[in-house]
Amino acid sequence: MKRDVYLNNQPLEEALENFMRFLSEEGALTAGTPETIPVEEALDRITAGPIYARISSPHYNASAMDGVAVLAAKTTGASETSPRQLKVDQDFVVVDTGDPIPPDFDAVIMIEDVNYPDNETIEIMAEASPWQHVRLMGEDIVAAEMILPGNHKIKPADIGGVLAGGITEIAVHARPKVALMPTGTELVQPGSELKPGDIIEYNTGVLAAMVRQWGGIPIRREITVDDYDLLKKTMLSAVEEADILLINAGSSAGREDFTSSLISELGVMVTHGVAIKPGKPTILGVIKGKPVIGVPGYPVSAILCMDLFLKPIIYRKQGLLPPPVAKTEAIVSRKLVSPLGLEEFVQVKLGRVGEKIIATPISRGAGVIMSMVRADGMLRVPRTSEGFNAAETVQVELHRPLDEVLETTVVIGSHDIAMDVRGD
Amino acid sequence: MKRDVYLNNQPLEEALENFMRFLSEEGALTAGTPETIPVEEALDRITAGPIYARISSPHYNASAMDGVAVLAAKTTGASETSPRQLKVDQDFVVVDTGDPIPPDFDAVIMIEDVNYPDNETIEIMAEASPWQHVRLMGEDIVAAEMILPGNHKIKPADIGGVLAGGITEIAVHARPKVALMPTGTELVQPGSELKPGDIIEYNTGVLAAMVRQWGGIPIRREITVDDYDLLKKTMLSAVEEADILLINAGSSAGREDFTSSLISELGVMVTHGVAIKPGKPTILGVIKGKPVIGVPGYPVSAILCMDLFLKPIIYRKQGLLPPPVAKTEAIVSRKLVSPLGLEEFVQVKLGRVGEKIIATPISRGAGVIMSMVRADGMLRVPRTSEGFNAAETVQVELHRPLDEVLETTVVIGSHDIAMDVRGD
Repeated sequence: MKRDVYLNNQPLEEALENFMRFLSEEGALTAGTPETIPVEEALDRITAGPIYARISSPHYNASAMDGVAVLAAKTTGASETSPRQLKVDQDFVVVDTGDPIPPDFDAVIMIEDVNYPDNETIEIMAEASPWQHVRLMGEDIVAAEMILPGNHKIKPADIGGVLAGGITEIAVHARPKVALMPTGTELVQPGSELKPGDIIEYNTGVLAAMVRQWGGIPIRREITVDDYDLLKKTMLSAVEEADILLINAGSSAGREDFTSSLISELGVMVTHGVAIKPGKPTILGVIKGKPVIGVPGYPVSAILCMDLFLKPIIYRKQGLLPPPVAKTEAIVSRKLVSPLGLEEFVQVKLGRVGEKIIATPISRGAGVIMSMVRADGMLRVPRTSEGFNAAETVQVELHRPLDEVLETTVVIGSHDIAMDVRGD
Repeated sequence: MKRDVYLNNQPLEEALENFMRFLSEEGALTAGTPETIPVEEALDRITAGPIYARISSPHYNASAMDGVAVLAAKTTGASETSPRQLKVDQDFVVVDTGDPIPPDFDAVIMIEDVNYPDNETIEIMAEASPWQHVRLMGEDIVAAEMILPGNHKIKPADIGGVLAGGITEIAVHARPKVALMPTGTELVQPGSELKPGDIIEYNTGVLAAMVRQWGGIPIRREITVDDYDLLKKTMLSAVEEADILLINAGSSAGREDFTSSLISELGVMVTHGVAIKPGKPTILGVIKGKPVIGVPGYPVSAILCMDLFLKPIIYRKQGLLPPPVAKTEAIVSRKLVSPLGLEEFVQVKLGRVGEKIIATPISRGAGVIMSMVRADGMLRVPRTSEGFNAAETVQVELHRPLDEVLETTVVIGSHDIAMDVRGD
């Protein structure tokens, strides 16, 4: 019955900095070999390097209007009082938008400004200036110009820019592969018949979706029971297959928690135990140059841990930093007591009352997945603070844009207040 | 050479309202038959109705800690001065986090608070209160509780909530299928050898990515040349196959612009010509109860048109409204002249100068796709306005979050200023 009862209690910023430095020194944060893919499939992928135009766009001088191409010099002096007649082919040709301007012509007159006395003649009432209504070659893109920088996330318009520059395939960073390894003898697949003690293994579904949102590829491993040799075998094969290994549960100091011993045996355990709540039993390590994170089993802890430690790795391996988290100021609706020495993360609902935004803490149980389903944002209580007083102003990290949150507050808010009384 | 030279000039809000009302009356905005899919594949899909829990979570009373389960009544009076000894099985059983609390027990004492005088005995120094460190059945989710409302976009944590409630498959709105029909004899596929007059057909790549971002499924049709019968045949088959038809180019009044005649022949043309710049020749119609949009050929016009007219349809067909567009106040860097009678959309770069955010208009050519590649946001010049003066305060609709924009302003900004001189 002897147990390794306690863990470290490393401050979050120190744990994160140490881990990232360690990974960086191990080369575990660099992008893999770029992939070459068709531009049209590149939405949301990240350029592996700058992309330069192969051709100009337009690649010829093009009519910008439906009308007639003319030589501007031949229109000099035309006016309403002295209209000028021009002969087809010799003095003008009909052009549609996008048509090339033929040699010996240098301007376009809009169709609305032209009269047709007969089928071979037009009459104009104004001079054309050279290159009017002409899209000059390279107006949009000049050959060899940089269309997109490296490490750039591709949006719809970028696809157009790259194709217009004559490029059909581009090199993008490989999407990091993240092996998700659920462990625990008590776990059963969703949909199984349940007996007391069975825990539905739903974390992997959540974690896989998070990996996808950040640009990674989740590789779902089957549930591994709490058996040292089986876990070891699975971890080794997962590390072969993936760029990052995530072990879910088995990270506290309970009697069947082998994760930390196995990471130490197979690689380096950098940190075991971070001064955060929830998420304290987090393990950070490296096996064969691959980042390995041991994530606690409770869903709220697991989600938080992913966000704090896995997200920056996935982004960096794609040449990016995680995007800044949108925040809002809000007023805490009630006193919030939090332990000294741990940085606590509290999920909140937001609502507008008059001019103010009110943040109401919701269930703080690490096992309450519904707190994450309902939350609009999250606030941090620093390690050195014992909490907030009612009506204190705080910074809330938003889970979704504030406009969206406030738009749906009435309906979802009232539902939640009722449920929260029970859930907390 | 006779031409139907001009179009309507309907104000945007009127065109949009008319079109949406018409579509609504035709039943063209309702969602299709819902799909049933595995929860784990439901990220970013929209629930077709509320989702209720089938079971409670936890579905039994569970230990919230590693420790020992006891009957609280048997611990009454235990203290540091009078420790209480308890016998295994009879008075306590060892439990790990998540284990069921056996019958006849009602509390858990944390392992850290227990001494082991021998293998069959523990000693405690404090009373346990009933249900301490126990996660009661239904603490997270109560059977029959609503986990998610209908018309809700599924985020990672939601997947956990639904699975925890014993649900493995859910009904979601079908993703609207959008047929994208590029038309024009001058168009060539990206990657083709080019001769003057050939236009690389890159719009479909952009439009397909936009459709995907909004939750739709793009169906790419091949380029159709400007031939009335061919266009008619393709439009009819596209309308059979898809929920929405988008015809790109052929929407102005040029000599080969058959789109409007064909929409009138095959269905109803609701609007031809909207008082916007760019995007004036937009066509809005319905064929066989399906929305049909004729989008101008210039890329900037096409993108704007998609955003104004297609986006609300795709969202509504999934039971949603488009999310609110994030905005920021900014100061226009230079005088901006805009025609009366047209609502103009001007792409801008943003930068911070001291406390202020400065919006610099970039190229306004409807053919300049790079203006969309470079833009951070867009401002609207109302129909009744002739533009803005330098240093006037304006509302900018953001293409990406302001924090992200300002983070990268220095690098991309300077690149852009150099390029803009040429491009505008």
